[in-house]
Amino acid sequence: MRFLHTADWHIGKKLHGYDLLEEQVDAFGQILTIAKDEKVDAIVVAGDLYDRSVPSVEAIEVFNRMIIEMNLQEKFPVLAISGNHDSSTRLETGGPWFIQSDFYLNTRLDQAFQPVEMQNTQFFLLPYFEPISARIYFDNEDIRTIEQAMKEVIIEMKQQFKPNMAHVLVSHFFVAGSEKSDSETKLMVGGLDTVPLSLLESFDYVALGHLHGKNALQAENARYSGSPLKFSLSEMNQKKGVWIVDTQVSDTTFEFKEIKPLRDVTQIEGSFKQLIAPDYYEAINREDYLHIQLTDRAVIPNMMNQLRQIYPRVIGVERLYGREEQQKKTENKKEIKALAPTELVDQFFSEVTGERLTKQQEDWIKENLAEIHQAERGQ
Amino acid sequence: MRFLHTADWHIGKKLHGYDLLEEQVDAFGQILTIAKDEKVDAIVVAGDLYDRSVPSVEAIEVFNRMIIEMNLQEKFPVLAISGNHDSSTRLETGGPWFIQSDFYLNTRLDQAFQPVEMQNTQFFLLPYFEPISARIYFDNEDIRTIEQAMKEVIIEMKQQFKPNMAHVLVSHFFVAGSEKSDSETKLMVGGLDTVPLSLLESFDYVALGHLHGKNALQAENARYSGSPLKFSLSEMNQKKGVWIVDTQVSDTTFEFKEIKPLRDVTQIEGSFKQLIAPDYYEAINREDYLHIQLTDRAVIPNMMNQLRQIYPRVIGVERLYGREEQQKKTENKKEIKALAPTELVDQFFSEVTGERLTKQQEDWIKENLAEIHQAERGQ
Repeated sequence: MRFLHTADWHIGKKLHGYDLLEEQVDAFGQILTIAKDEKVDAIVVAGDLYDRSVPSVEAIEVFNRMIIEMNLQEKFPVLAISGNHDSSTRLETGGPWFIQSDFYLNTRLDQAFQPVEMQNTQFFLLPYFEPISARIYFDNEDIRTIEQAMKEVIIEMKQQFKPNMAHVLVSHFFVAGSEKSDSETKLMVGGLDTVPLSLLESFDYVALGHLHGKNALQAENARYSGSPLKFSLSEMNQKKGVWIVDTQVSDTTFEFKEIKPLRDVTQIEGSFKQLIAPDYYEAINREDYLHIQLTDRAVIPNMMNQLRQIYPRVIGVERLYGREEQQKKTENKKEIKALAPTELVDQFFSEVTGERLTKQQEDWIKENLAEIHQAERGQ
Repeated sequence: MRFLHTADWHIGKKLHGYDLLEEQVDAFGQILTIAKDEKVDAIVVAGDLYDRSVPSVEAIEVFNRMIIEMNLQEKFPVLAISGNHDSSTRLETGGPWFIQSDFYLNTRLDQAFQPVEMQNTQFFLLPYFEPISARIYFDNEDIRTIEQAMKEVIIEMKQQFKPNMAHVLVSHFFVAGSEKSDSETKLMVGGLDTVPLSLLESFDYVALGHLHGKNALQAENARYSGSPLKFSLSEMNQKKGVWIVDTQVSDTTFEFKEIKPLRDVTQIEGSFKQLIAPDYYEAINREDYLHIQLTDRAVIPNMMNQLRQIYPRVIGVERLYGREEQQKKTENKKEIKALAPTELVDQFFSEVTGERLTKQQEDWIKENLAEIHQAERGQ
């Protein structure tokens, strides 16, 4: 059969404070289009549907609309698991009803041992779990690591294997030897939390979630789909998308299909003067999430405000060659005492932010200092 | 047709810090038993399924099990709405799939105008809503109150009325003239948030939720089911249960079926000496949630601990005849200054709590005061 493999939707995720819901809805639309164009028989989602265990109401609204469209309107069978960012119990609500329309959303370890069979393929949907769950399920106190747990899990799964079918594992963990980027914040790389690739060799395909780069793992029979969007600057150069997988009993092939972001996460470099020149910024996509590398060393008054007026989604500014020393470096206490209150604030602001106060800010400070002064006299 | 009317489950609610989940599961079991014994065709739940908009994981687990049992295992059609304690969006997940097995869970105003038809009856499931939702839905800026909104709501519902059927409204609000108890904390009594009974006269039966007493409203065609459990001391004397309603096109009848609480909320009265006597407490149900009315006036050392050893679920202690003045009433500053630090703490404790320090508490204080004293000298 032919299926689409995606993962790590992280619905509700923010990027440096910016809400990504619009981008997530857009990427989801592209996933659906790919699924239709490629005429897949099912959509696999390998965990981390939400970004947090208690998602916001807005994130839930988006998720609800997505699964309705995917499963009830477009009639795609859906094979999904919860990831480490999801609350398994919160995600569980509705699960037994979803099955009526071939939407399988596994959130508990015990569900992983009843494969979903479609056409020529058995799907084992293994949600993210902690070793404690395996200790309880297998009644085995010796299970301390995910690797130990996975050995038992796979033994039990293999008892369900039908020889004339392809076997697909859908799971959400870190496979030893994979490479990570910056946006998988809770991940422990290597060590006790990893699963060796050799453990997974019985499967024709392992549809993985957890790592956000599609190339994190290079294996014959296992792939991370990666996230549908870039979730950090470290993913700047990654191509995002989904795998289209064809399972045959003896041979499984997969192909990558790209998703074009509504707004990219990228980087620009130049002097402040260059960056605020219309010739420059009109030629690039300034709606993107931009990390700005400034070549200037001079202090630039009101820099962030000026940049944000042109680039509405600045996720960071870096001074490539450092910043000039402040004109006045006041380490002498006497000198500080000699300053007027407004000058003192100006100096402090400039030392901390590298910018000078604007006229408006200065007026606001004067006004408020006067008020405080008055209040003090009133006491 | 014949249906069971319940409401205000408030799953996850705590009573004076005590978790009520066990009692809620027990009451739910009784509701199911009544539904089976009475051979009802459907179960109506008129809002406030959860106690809070973001329920705990434990509350969600209980809720998930309940709806699975009620709808998927026992095959009861369920007609439910969200109440003011529920988050409509959080409760909405799964809704479109629930319908496949006749589980209707309405959370949005617009859903209220597509009646669910079963046998001879049209059910209008109107979730709790704010006037702003009606302003948007009806595109009418003049709607400021629930009463104004309900006028429009009912006009639109009546357009869907089929003349040869009975018409049932399921809703969650305050009907003018009802009586309230203490556990509906967020309720504004009377005024702009109420709906006059006269507005509801077109319905053969109005299955209400919001108020926790079954007798809160005495009307020919409208009833609060009340909560399945007592949620406050003010509900001490209420009988809890559900209505069994029979709708005929021209005549609707209803009958109350009681739920016996796993642990009651009640009150006992006596002197401390009486209450701690085995002859007394062995004759009563001391596992109940108890409000204790003490007839003593004397200070009783370590009173709460002693009571809780016998009565594990004390929800309050009241001194029916007040409390004796403290032996030493130290209002004179000089006198206070003359006290040793331990005496000072003892006196303060006794004034605040009405109890004297136990030997153990006194030792602990002495020990700690000595330590503080030492630390001070060390500085």
